[in-house]
Amino acid sequence: MMRAQVWLGGAEFAVAEATVPELGAGEVLVELEVATVCGSDRHTVSGRRPGACPSVLGHEGVGVVAESRRAGIEPGQRVVFSVTSVCHECVMCRRGLSAKCERVQKVGHESFDGSWPWSGTYATHIHLPAGVEVVEVPPELSSERASTAGCAVATVMAMVETAGDLRDKSVLVTGLGMLGITAVAAARADGARRIIACDPAPGAREAVRGLADEVVDVASGELVDVSFELSGSSAGTQACLDALAVGGVAVLAGAVAPGPGVMLDPEWVVRGWRTVTGVHNYEPRHLGQAVSFLDRHGDSLPWDHIFGRRVSLAELPEVFTEPVGARVLVDCRS
Amino acid sequence: MMRAQVWLGGAEFAVAEATVPELGAGEVLVELEVATVCGSDRHTVSGRRPGACPSVLGHEGVGVVAESRRAGIEPGQRVVFSVTSVCHECVMCRRGLSAKCERVQKVGHESFDGSWPWSGTYATHIHLPAGVEVVEVPPELSSERASTAGCAVATVMAMVETAGDLRDKSVLVTGLGMLGITAVAAARADGARRIIACDPAPGAREAVRGLADEVVDVASGELVDVSFELSGSSAGTQACLDALAVGGVAVLAGAVAPGPGVMLDPEWVVRGWRTVTGVHNYEPRHLGQAVSFLDRHGDSLPWDHIFGRRVSLAELPEVFTEPVGARVLVDCRS
Repeated sequence: MMRAQVWLGGAEFAVAEATVPELGAGEVLVELEVATVCGSDRHTVSGRRPGACPSVLGHEGVGVVAESRRAGIEPGQRVVFSVTSVCHECVMCRRGLSAKCERVQKVGHESFDGSWPWSGTYATHIHLPAGVEVVEVPPELSSERASTAGCAVATVMAMVETAGDLRDKSVLVTGLGMLGITAVAAARADGARRIIACDPAPGAREAVRGLADEVVDVASGELVDVSFELSGSSAGTQACLDALAVGGVAVLAGAVAPGPGVMLDPEWVVRGWRTVTGVHNYEPRHLGQAVSFLDRHGDSLPWDHIFGRRVSLAELPEVFTEPVGARVLVDCRS
Repeated sequence: MMRAQVWLGGAEFAVAEATVPELGAGEVLVELEVATVCGSDRHTVSGRRPGACPSVLGHEGVGVVAESRRAGIEPGQRVVFSVTSVCHECVMCRRGLSAKCERVQKVGHESFDGSWPWSGTYATHIHLPAGVEVVEVPPELSSERASTAGCAVATVMAMVETAGDLRDKSVLVTGLGMLGITAVAAARADGARRIIACDPAPGAREAVRGLADEVVDVASGELVDVSFELSGSSAGTQACLDALAVGGVAVLAGAVAPGPGVMLDPEWVVRGWRTVTGVHNYEPRHLGQAVSFLDRHGDSLPWDHIFGRRVSLAELPEVFTEPVGARVLVDCRS
């Protein structure tokens, strides 16, 4: 039997149970160990972001393969999985932008009454379609850490790839939640010369002391080669643009909800050979990179700041009534 | 003896003469055949763009090597040359952005009283420092056509490279001067599926009929994969942004003078994985690509629209008192 916390809208959840499904070609059934509560689920529950309802939320998680009809994926393997399920056939997939697949479905985003009810990680099991990337977790990497790969860390890997070679570059990171912290650590791992981390919240700044070269509440005006925007705020976006040196690249990923625009000076873009680009979700290769990054550089991340309390699946609903804090871990087996 | 039209400010020019210089290591002396009058020289003379004065203007030209101290470049070769002279050593050069070399000097932009007086093409000879790229012109390519390589066409090659693979893509080009026409032809040569060309001026639109799939005075709202901005106008920039489909790239090059800003919606950038990027001048490789493009695809360009009248070097000053029209050719030998 499988069990899930089904979101009913508002802060309402109900437990649902079902027998394990018959798998189609390429599909995988994963018995979940641990899930984490991503900020975007909080936005969905609070109504700030539209989401299918009823649905099983949760798109970050780790588990053990229970059944598999995919070559290379065997029962007993501990795995993570991508947030998108893609067709690999449409024009966007063929162009290498499967994140914008014309037939995309997403882990933790599909209707419980539709064709993919068991899509989320707030459950004992997740049913993965053929279009979801599945990556094995190395034995040394804990499930707690690995649980961040499929959303936060893989998105940062996509941002870093978009920014290009970071060796000897100066980098600004705005917004020091899970993604911003990871961006600071990834820039460090990739050989950035100088990293400035920026967040108005003192607690957030505390998390990256020792990891960034300078930690500030507002950007100082120092120019950088690369900026990573993860605050989602208009001020963060403006800071990432204003900070760009000649040849600089601003990679925006935080702004996933409507907000005010920013002014862009075309001459500044042209004469400075500057680039402003967006990243939303990621490609399948970035999930493998995320696991590899966590395996090799995971010790550099301030996990005590990143993770908050641990709850059972039964306790999940109360998480959404609490103020936002560190990332809550959900024990999917209890 | 060498002879030049030295710009004295306003619409004032004076003829200067000198004996040929002693060449340093890597330097090349070119006896010019033909130069063309680029729009940016008109901006300099009209005062819209700051420029060294007195100076020999002109940064597009073709000529025959008279003397050379560079390996591979021999007297008698017909050549074109890059607009930038770069150090190949500074951080920008090492990063592959030599267009923004910290010690950049530019053909047709240096003071006649400084260390590089014979920097321009409005002269019988041009003195090329070791940092200027020199590319031989194939025998089949006329000097008139080749004269556009060093500024307009090479810049478009840089824009096309920045945009990425154009095969099967839809493309919008705003601003149909020499660069816009070339961008349309380059997109066609690179396999673009559909090309929309946009310019408010009827004469400009006429030039690309038969080359673009659709020619319009204002962008229709149709979404495209790639947009090339060459009008320099705020409306052109806005059109290039507004037209971007998901995954789209806007390459701006027209805005090289101050102008109004445009509004950028961060969520639109992020969720659409869109990119806005600038190109100003180009890298040495783009000059070779420009010559190759003109050699292979030059017949597709509407040269009757591109080139205006032909003047002697002695007649050059009057060009700047005339209204802007088609590109004037300057016979540097008369």
